[in-house]
Amino acid sequence: MTTTSWEARAAEKRAATLAKIRPEWRLSPDDMERARKQRDLTGPFIQSFLLADEVSIISKDSVDIVDAIKEGKLTAVQVTIAFCKTAAIAHQINNCLHEIFFDQALELAQSLDTYYADKKTTLGPLHGLPISLKDQFHVKGVDTTMGYVGWIGSNLGIKDPSQAHLVESEITRELLALGAVLYCKTSLPQTLLFGETKNNIIGQTLNPRNQNLSCGGSSGGEGALQALRGSTLGVGTDIGGSVRIPAAFNGIFALKPTPERLPYRDAANTNPGQNTYRSTVGFLSTSLAGLDLILRSALSTQPWLADPAVAPIPFRQEVVDRQLARAGADGSAQPSESPLKLGVLWNDGVVTPHPPVTRGIRMLVDAVTQAGHKTVLWDPPPQATAKRVHVAFLKADGAHDISHQLELSGEPLISDLRDTFQLRPPMDLLEYQGLTLQGLEYESAYSDYWNSTAADDGQVVDAVIMPVAPHAAVIPGRFYHTAYTEAINLLNYSAAVIPVTKADKTTDIPDPSFRPLGPEDKVNWEAYDAEIYDGGPVGLQIVARKFEEEKVLAVAKIVYAALQASKAKVGVV
Amino acid sequence: MTTTSWEARAAEKRAATLAKIRPEWRLSPDDMERARKQRDLTGPFIQSFLLADEVSIISKDSVDIVDAIKEGKLTAVQVTIAFCKTAAIAHQINNCLHEIFFDQALELAQSLDTYYADKKTTLGPLHGLPISLKDQFHVKGVDTTMGYVGWIGSNLGIKDPSQAHLVESEITRELLALGAVLYCKTSLPQTLLFGETKNNIIGQTLNPRNQNLSCGGSSGGEGALQALRGSTLGVGTDIGGSVRIPAAFNGIFALKPTPERLPYRDAANTNPGQNTYRSTVGFLSTSLAGLDLILRSALSTQPWLADPAVAPIPFRQEVVDRQLARAGADGSAQPSESPLKLGVLWNDGVVTPHPPVTRGIRMLVDAVTQAGHKTVLWDPPPQATAKRVHVAFLKADGAHDISHQLELSGEPLISDLRDTFQLRPPMDLLEYQGLTLQGLEYESAYSDYWNSTAADDGQVVDAVIMPVAPHAAVIPGRFYHTAYTEAINLLNYSAAVIPVTKADKTTDIPDPSFRPLGPEDKVNWEAYDAEIYDGGPVGLQIVARKFEEEKVLAVAKIVYAALQASKAKVGVV
Repeated sequence: MTTTSWEARAAEKRAATLAKIRPEWRLSPDDMERARKQRDLTGPFIQSFLLADEVSIISKDSVDIVDAIKEGKLTAVQVTIAFCKTAAIAHQINNCLHEIFFDQALELAQSLDTYYADKKTTLGPLHGLPISLKDQFHVKGVDTTMGYVGWIGSNLGIKDPSQAHLVESEITRELLALGAVLYCKTSLPQTLLFGETKNNIIGQTLNPRNQNLSCGGSSGGEGALQALRGSTLGVGTDIGGSVRIPAAFNGIFALKPTPERLPYRDAANTNPGQNTYRSTVGFLSTSLAGLDLILRSALSTQPWLADPAVAPIPFRQEVVDRQLARAGADGSAQPSESPLKLGVLWNDGVVTPHPPVTRGIRMLVDAVTQAGHKTVLWDPPPQATAKRVHVAFLKADGAHDISHQLELSGEPLISDLRDTFQLRPPMDLLEYQGLTLQGLEYESAYSDYWNSTAADDGQVVDAVIMPVAPHAAVIPGRFYHTAYTEAINLLNYSAAVIPVTKADKTTDIPDPSFRPLGPEDKVNWEAYDAEIYDGGPVGLQIVARKFEEEKVLAVAKIVYAALQASKAKVGVV
Repeated sequence: MTTTSWEARAAEKRAATLAKIRPEWRLSPDDMERARKQRDLTGPFIQSFLLADEVSIISKDSVDIVDAIKEGKLTAVQVTIAFCKTAAIAHQINNCLHEIFFDQALELAQSLDTYYADKKTTLGPLHGLPISLKDQFHVKGVDTTMGYVGWIGSNLGIKDPSQAHLVESEITRELLALGAVLYCKTSLPQTLLFGETKNNIIGQTLNPRNQNLSCGGSSGGEGALQALRGSTLGVGTDIGGSVRIPAAFNGIFALKPTPERLPYRDAANTNPGQNTYRSTVGFLSTSLAGLDLILRSALSTQPWLADPAVAPIPFRQEVVDRQLARAGADGSAQPSESPLKLGVLWNDGVVTPHPPVTRGIRMLVDAVTQAGHKTVLWDPPPQATAKRVHVAFLKADGAHDISHQLELSGEPLISDLRDTFQLRPPMDLLEYQGLTLQGLEYESAYSDYWNSTAADDGQVVDAVIMPVAPHAAVIPGRFYHTAYTEAINLLNYSAAVIPVTKADKTTDIPDPSFRPLGPEDKVNWEAYDAEIYDGGPVGLQIVARKFEEEKVLAVAKIVYAALQASKAKVGVV
């Protein structure tokens, strides 16, 4: 097998994945060609391949699906078939899956239906819900390639075939125990450390809402699959924006927790020995309610008992209740409670967001202000510092781990990363420890800044509205500035992403008097093209402090409700 | 100033500290000579220098002091004078202080009394309680030398005199806000990374309960001062046993939390850039109630808002209540509740504890068994692995940080550490990251072992009884094996220490048939000398999992009550 070229192994893997799709779900060459020419694959386009009943199922969000199964209105098998079929079509037109295991999923769904029929109750809070996984999470019987050709046929690049396909990540185990149906693993970029989704096995996953654009990364396949309604809830990871970027780029929701909130145990990762700034398990969903459902479900398993890295903090309903009491169902501030106080980061002083993003921020600010909440300008310690320190940790091992994985097959780095992750000598330990101090200092300074927001009116900022990136879903190859997400990783803060708007060529006209802040600002600004970006989703992040996952989801719910109310007022959808 | 020899600067510092003692509290040369010849300085000996009223005050534990002040039975000034005087005498006979600031303390105590007189209430839960600090914590107006000659006249070794004495550690700020009276800083070893207390400024702090022995380290001055009742409550730090060892060696109590539970912000430390295995702030006290008081008080300030490294976990009274419901006041298991299930580590398979320690474990096991609780043999993943990995992190920078601090004055390493912390090239980063993985693997394996204890009876072990060291308070220079504490640091577990017994030359006779497990076991065993160790305290640790501080204190309370009940039965005090 190792004598086969990496190109041949990758081609074989691609073919094997496609071969797992039932013949009746395969698209014709004509359909494929039609899809290639289609700017937006979501909504009516993908629905044209589905039956009305299937469209009805996949249009539901996670909580409605779980409720329908619980109430006997749908079976787990019906739901699973609808999502497997949609995912199959999504993959054919959008190239967003690494692994397909629909047969396992249907078998599991059948057993859940039998359980329900026998016991008249569900197995757990996720009973029958199809959940997709980024291809870092091990599922028994299935590859984890993580985008490396050398891992094909195995997990974690292990050589001993007897050990392959026997491992299961902790989060996988929990989801199954909670009643979820796992059916596919989604695409990601080689190395995981890239804001797009490209690797030498599947090639590239583009943005299903606008095929001129990238689906983002690294949990890019998750974002794309959900935009196509091939999933309502999925598990990703985020060390520099990898959950938030694809959520924002695909018009869906996401939760990036503080790293030790959820179990990462026994998941594949890039250079796991770099544990100073950890990647975190996070969730992507077509609804905020889906994020709430999976967070409370996962925490109900007491994951800290199985994964000692997890802090023993159960789901705090009282935090949710306290926040939600501050607003009505339309997000409006309740007169009896203190309104939300939200910081707003318009620009990090290095790279100015493109017009669609700035307009998105304006929409949110207007919406929450109209709803009676407060906003204040957010001017924290420089994100440029955060980015410099954070990137240095990701590169500290001189790409030794990445190089090792590439050597397993002989595949090269993808061209986008050829300079960044070239093999180099590792950083000197004293420099590494010095950087650690800089990171800690940044964290302290940021926390002090946050506390200082009480100085004017006695109220500390609850959360901060920020760009996820300085652009809508990006034109491939033009993602120059990741500081908006990376700064939050250096801080280990919790964050939620909500979809806000889409780039609109008629509205989002660059200011002709714009003067760039510097060369990075210039290159990003010049990459804006209203025509190409048109229709590209803009999501924004709402950021809270460490371990404030319940709070950030509740605040996001209020803000999103205010946005919807505001859009309804002006007749925008 | 830098032209002065380090010896002269150290001598000047020693003299300046002694000069801060009021003339009427100074001992005569005769008394000093008498103290030098006295094996046990605690109890009657130190009390002979105090008035009856003062003895009455310093014999109270923390909670009783706070209550007496709250009820108007004592003033903060009365209490502060009693403890300052006792600490002054303790330092003269036991050399346990680095800094004395009694005048500041008395001024603060006076203002607290005025506050109480005016407002008829206390400032906070620690109102008027003298609390001692290990000399890592900055207090405004006071040096922090951390045992380095080069830091004399300053804090943190800063050169700019305008910045000296202006910094305040976060825990200092909190204690003051809670009403505590700070009055002295206690001795510690050069580097902090030593289980005894020696440095080039004060020389050595010996064990006040048996001057043949060490007071332990690194929070050694805390332990010694409390054994002499010069304090009932103090703040230390623990990265390898530095809170637990001096507590065990001085016959007092301690709490070592998981690192991110309490604020370490703005405290001096050795090589703070090594943040993979962090030192933790911990407490030492003459009572378990004192530990409970300071933990709940410190957490009431929401320290996570001021120190972003702290996990936002408030004091969990429900955890305490749940545990305490399982036993009566005498520690006896309640028939309506599940008994405690305690693991017992008798021997780590590398170094066998001396007879006094093994007898101590036996006493505890008998006591809890008689009280109706369960014990099981504890046989976790090898502590030798934990120690190897942990020590490598402490030495990874090749002693560059330590060497830098020494160079400030030209002082040498103390002889005990000359080999360990010789300046060397730092570890290679890939090795460092590889070690990180080994640490994480150990943690997972240990957690799995812990979970496996439910296999026999469905009940998971609540906590584990372990030695703190393989000997009672150690003979200086004979502390060969620190794995019993270091393994717990690698796991980031929470632990409490309780005093159990004292070495007794009539009882603790080594088994003549003992065969050492290896060379480390041999050297430790041969260091046992029943005559010298006689009277040396034996404390044991009770270990729970991460962030289980409330639980471990509650379990310690039950176990200690059972021990007292058992001793009462057999007439032992």
